[in-house]
Amino acid sequence: MSVIETCHRCGTRYEDEFRVRCGCGEPLWIESEATTFAWDDGGDRSGIWRYESLLPIDRPDGVARAAGGTPLVRSPGLDDVAGGRVFVKDESENPTGAYKDRGSAVAVPHAIAAGDDVIGTVSYGNMAISTAAHATSLDRECIVFVPEDISRVRLELIGQYEPTIIRVSGGYGELYGDALELSERLPISVLVSDAPTRISGYKTALFEICESFAPETPDVIALPASSGGFASGVWLGVRELERAGLIDEPPRLCLVQTAAADPLTRAFEDGATDPTPMSPDETGETIAHSIGNPDPPSGARALAAVRDTGGAVVSVTDDEIRTARRQFAVEGGFCVEPASATTLAGVSRLADRGEVSAGESVVLVPTGTGFKELGTGGTDVTAETVHRTDLPARLESLLP
Amino acid sequence: MSVIETCHRCGTRYEDEFRVRCGCGEPLWIESEATTFAWDDGGDRSGIWRYESLLPIDRPDGVARAAGGTPLVRSPGLDDVAGGRVFVKDESENPTGAYKDRGSAVAVPHAIAAGDDVIGTVSYGNMAISTAAHATSLDRECIVFVPEDISRVRLELIGQYEPTIIRVSGGYGELYGDALELSERLPISVLVSDAPTRISGYKTALFEICESFAPETPDVIALPASSGGFASGVWLGVRELERAGLIDEPPRLCLVQTAAADPLTRAFEDGATDPTPMSPDETGETIAHSIGNPDPPSGARALAAVRDTGGAVVSVTDDEIRTARRQFAVEGGFCVEPASATTLAGVSRLADRGEVSAGESVVLVPTGTGFKELGTGGTDVTAETVHRTDLPARLESLLP
Repeated sequence: MSVIETCHRCGTRYEDEFRVRCGCGEPLWIESEATTFAWDDGGDRSGIWRYESLLPIDRPDGVARAAGGTPLVRSPGLDDVAGGRVFVKDESENPTGAYKDRGSAVAVPHAIAAGDDVIGTVSYGNMAISTAAHATSLDRECIVFVPEDISRVRLELIGQYEPTIIRVSGGYGELYGDALELSERLPISVLVSDAPTRISGYKTALFEICESFAPETPDVIALPASSGGFASGVWLGVRELERAGLIDEPPRLCLVQTAAADPLTRAFEDGATDPTPMSPDETGETIAHSIGNPDPPSGARALAAVRDTGGAVVSVTDDEIRTARRQFAVEGGFCVEPASATTLAGVSRLADRGEVSAGESVVLVPTGTGFKELGTGGTDVTAETVHRTDLPARLESLLP
Repeated sequence: MSVIETCHRCGTRYEDEFRVRCGCGEPLWIESEATTFAWDDGGDRSGIWRYESLLPIDRPDGVARAAGGTPLVRSPGLDDVAGGRVFVKDESENPTGAYKDRGSAVAVPHAIAAGDDVIGTVSYGNMAISTAAHATSLDRECIVFVPEDISRVRLELIGQYEPTIIRVSGGYGELYGDALELSERLPISVLVSDAPTRISGYKTALFEICESFAPETPDVIALPASSGGFASGVWLGVRELERAGLIDEPPRLCLVQTAAADPLTRAFEDGATDPTPMSPDETGETIAHSIGNPDPPSGARALAAVRDTGGAVVSVTDDEIRTARRQFAVEGGFCVEPASATTLAGVSRLADRGEVSAGESVVLVPTGTGFKELGTGGTDVTAETVHRTDLPARLESLLP
């Protein structure tokens, strides 16, 4: 299948070569050439493959079949906190527990079809887990580049799929550029966070949300933002649905960052089109590991997405994230990772500023499950001990 | 909505009272009164609510909306091990990562509608997590009864939803009977593993599998077996689809137990209709915590399900479970808990005995995600360290 890539900024088209970045420096994406699309076209296909005609590969076998198709859940228990009518798009219900599977399900088979026998990725979290799972399910080698000081828990999460894991010393933060160069020169596809085929996978999250609301469109969609890859995919989805005449007014894309690393928030507030990378001195520690990115490679595109849709970028503190994570669990029944909890905290902040109003439909997208590292945090939970024979009396005292 | 319960063994019907067990001692279930059902009736509803007309409650709000709708994935990488054409029904893609959500999504709202403000459950694993999540999402109190020696990790997994957790000393294994008695006497619904409304939720897994295959029917469905509740639900689903004329020949239900606690396997091999409870002396330790049940309350019904469908019950060792878990990850790309890995090990054993043949379609149902406790097991993962500047040379030596 021929694939045409375009640049969101300068409009350059690439038809004969597959690249990650445009000559102007911006990341590329694949705009579907399909001129018509209707919701019914999905037929009885499931997950992201409902939109197969808009994707750059044919549906493969293996775990990729299980990507997407996550539920959208009306969650009234979160309305008061969020300040709108909350819907949760639960991306933890993907095969490796994160939205990353949408990207891997497209990018890994695409790289294999392009002739690379070895798949790589630069990640020590959800993207590493997802990429390794998808590669091994298609019987391909995978090499995962992780930081030297990766935790034992993370190694075990990634290692179960038996990729080659390489701890990289001497500048993990600069691996993004190295990966692009190595992928061009060696028989390996290192699928970085904003690889064009990943972006194609991510747009399906927007398609699913809009199909669930059709013929209405939600007012606000809130995502955590790190590399800007997911936001890019959602924006690509918006553009394709607008072109197909399936939405009129796009949902406002609201991106939420951790205050510890928030170059997009700073650029948004400054009115800048490009984020300024944050130095190590400016970057703090955060419990939202998945999004602590001081130099987002798709940052300019994410900012363009926000402005095009009339959205916003906000930052939240670790304390706000802890509170929001608890609210997701206790008011919503959802176990989300800290990075995902930012969505609720961020929308709450927007509501306080009057940028979300009570009647509006607000879609929160928790991007990853909280189960992966939950039992390792050392949270204390109180639980009294009662002898079985004393249970009836103790229960009577507890019940209304 | 009025609910009529029946007994699988003696056929007694209960119309005016809601009970867990029949007068004959067997657990009850709710047989749908619907006389007609077609796959199209599901319309655009998602998850278990595609089958709302066959369920004893109307679709509630909250996390219950996210239950079910899990993908069925053709997984050729597992064919050689299983000895048939493998499909994985990935139940980890439920809101709390386990099939238990299907049961909780029906049982919790049903108990609330019946007037009980407090929900309880007897579990220290997936059922506790699921029940607590569903109760809090509907703004109801939940009391979870756990063993005295529960691990800190489990406490944290359950505790995130903030139920009241009571550690029970002096005979945790006997709490099933206590729970039924307490539920009758006090304003609490303790939803045990084979509560009739849970069984109603579990039947939707069978509906989804059969709808995916329609108009064909899979040859074999393999489930882990513990209380016998899930097997009962799947059998109830088979019966209802047969009555609706949607399947002719039922799939063979194959139940897999851990060799450490396998009263169903023993009864099946002895030709007994009822399992004999295993004593503490006979019961071993196992890595498949979720299914180490020496006294399954729905055991007789599970055995009847197997015999009615021409299936089998087999046991597998912890070593076989470890191997199967690795195969699920490395050949399939799925992260499953040890109890779920039994399905692959069990089918492999049946294939060795000639009870599964190469052309047959085999649905493995991993019932829960392996992510919940993965990073806590202390597995060693090897990973070399390479300096960033040495990476190109090292990669060249690794690549083909």
